Amino acid sequence: MRLLERTLAEIGKPDGSAIAAARKRLDNLTKPLGSLGVLEDLAAKLAGISGKTVPPAGWPVDKAVVVMAGDHGVTAEGVSAYPQEVTVQMIANFVRGGAGINVLARQAGARVVVVDMGVAGEVADPAVLSRKIRPGTRNIAAGPAMDREDAVAALEAGIAVASAEVEKGAALLATGDMGIGNTTPSSAITAAFAGMPVQTLVGSGTGIDGERRRDKVAVVERALAANSPDPRDGIAVLAALGGFEIGGLAGLILGAAARRVPIIIDGFIAGAAALVAARIKREATSFMIASHLSEEPGHRICLELLGLEPVLRLRMRLGEGTGAVLAMNLVEASARIIREMATFGEAGVSTAIEG
Amino acid sequence: MRLLERTLAEIGKPDGSAIAAARKRLDNLTKPLGSLGVLEDLAAKLAGISGKTVPPAGWPVDKAVVVMAGDHGVTAEGVSAYPQEVTVQMIANFVRGGAGINVLARQAGARVVVVDMGVAGEVADPAVLSRKIRPGTRNIAAGPAMDREDAVAALEAGIAVASAEVEKGAALLATGDMGIGNTTPSSAITAAFAGMPVQTLVGSGTGIDGERRRDKVAVVERALAANSPDPRDGIAVLAALGGFEIGGLAGLILGAAARRVPIIIDGFIAGAAALVAARIKREATSFMIASHLSEEPGHRICLELLGLEPVLRLRMRLGEGTGAVLAMNLVEASARIIREMATFGEAGVSTAIEG
Repeated sequence: MRLLERTLAEIGKPDGSAIAAARKRLDNLTKPLGSLGVLEDLAAKLAGISGKTVPPAGWPVDKAVVVMAGDHGVTAEGVSAYPQEVTVQMIANFVRGGAGINVLARQAGARVVVVDMGVAGEVADPAVLSRKIRPGTRNIAAGPAMDREDAVAALEAGIAVASAEVEKGAALLATGDMGIGNTTPSSAITAAFAGMPVQTLVGSGTGIDGERRRDKVAVVERALAANSPDPRDGIAVLAALGGFEIGGLAGLILGAAARRVPIIIDGFIAGAAALVAARIKREATSFMIASHLSEEPGHRICLELLGLEPVLRLRMRLGEGTGAVLAMNLVEASARIIREMATFGEAGVSTAIEG
Repeated sequence: MRLLERTLAEIGKPDGSAIAAARKRLDNLTKPLGSLGVLEDLAAKLAGISGKTVPPAGWPVDKAVVVMAGDHGVTAEGVSAYPQEVTVQMIANFVRGGAGINVLARQAGARVVVVDMGVAGEVADPAVLSRKIRPGTRNIAAGPAMDREDAVAALEAGIAVASAEVEKGAALLATGDMGIGNTTPSSAITAAFAGMPVQTLVGSGTGIDGERRRDKVAVVERALAANSPDPRDGIAVLAALGGFEIGGLAGLILGAAARRVPIIIDGFIAGAAALVAARIKREATSFMIASHLSEEPGHRICLELLGLEPVLRLRMRLGEGTGAVLAMNLVEASARIIREMATFGEAGVSTAIEG
């Protein structure tokens, strides 16, 4: 059996009895019932993922954000405010630690793992994991981004990265992305799954507006018309409209789910990857934690389709995993709450007055 | 001159040239313009408060959440789901480190400073700072909560705590509160300043609903009718409708503003205190950072009156400073961004394509 099929077979359901035990403990902690809102939901979700009511002390000792990079043939259509060489330049910035994701990962205490999934230029730096499928996708406005075998190869590369990070000790993973032009394939993927008009979900990306945004809508519409993938087939949608980094991230998510490690989903590009993963294996959504709500209008649609609630609304639209690593603090806070807070009995605090 | 007047005279305006320099630096960092949203706004705000474009390395080395506690005569009206003795019991829980605020302050790396501003019972623990004005307020449904001199004393106690914490090294402060029944005075204070119908802003507090919530609306309406304080006079509103912890927090905020230390405002009780502080000295709002949006409906109105945007929406309604310490991570992230991210020039990354 291939790695992909084996991985899909390993993805199970959340542990219902661990969730129930977590809810019971949360209800007995010294606070009004339910008053920690989303933190309580996160603690219950972690219990369902791990099968443990209370996470171990110091959890998660090790955590990582995986930044997957790829280039996009569709940039030939002028969909981005930045030239394609910025993908390679930003990888160098990641390696030197000067990018937004490096700064915010230091704040979160997370490792940054940079993966070349399909960058057009040459990336020789040994600090970058090379899993290059091809040097950039084809132009989706004219035909499929990649062959189906390459889509599967991208998914399997992502699965392998997830396994390697879990082997290294990562107990909490986050998605990151880099790829000039990649809000265009993400818009196309989201439109394909949602069956919604393209103009409702295409945004300004890194900073186009007015006429160029209207051109971008037309490009996404051409991509959908040129490819019309079957929206029930996640791999077909990825192959038709995707990017190699999007495929890698979808694989990363599936790999994390198979290993029962929670994975924090960043913004719009990660959302499109999560949609691909969820279409391939619906149960994978139980292992996803949504981080922020991006300024890209399509992101809200991704999250609605996934049934996930973002925990941060910071008007961000940078990508790289920046929203996901910011959310790590909230996930860790929820783990501490269920582990460290005293119960009413332990603290000798009176409970609510009946009636 | 009294401490209060001296403090008000010391509160200045944000440093406009530091804000402009911060914005210029943020625009030149390796990211699309404005793409870090709220983090960029926070970094600019910190510059305005401190007068420094970039915060020092490791800022803030020391940070503290000040949890002010008080009791409320209005609990005699049955406005809370919990008995009044829970205020004292929770102080013991704070001292032992088992409450929500302790757990989340450990996650944030912040000290917890517990202050008895006016608890009804005796608090003998030396770990609790005693600034007790009176053992609980009078019942606001029947008349003023406290005399005007006591309101001023509560404000000055808060100012003194702020000064002491800044002297100890705190570079970032947060407000916390404990006091069974204190959403009732907070609702009354907010209604008095906003001039809005009480029923639009009274919530469930720690967990009442239906008929008891309707009774609480009636109690707040009686409090407003019995006192009808001049909404242009912040001290009068505090004396008529307040709590000692609310006065202490308003003083803490004014003290932080005078020392030009950013202060993170927690939820609804802190919001009411911030309204009092802002009415006493409008410029104090420039030193406030809103944390989360509470489930209490009045909190949104507080933030709108203050002109502050919450950075977290976690469906929380616990108080104690729990939302404020969670927001510390975002404030620190913003400081790191402006300090540590590489510029386009430093990183050799191409800037956006013109036109």
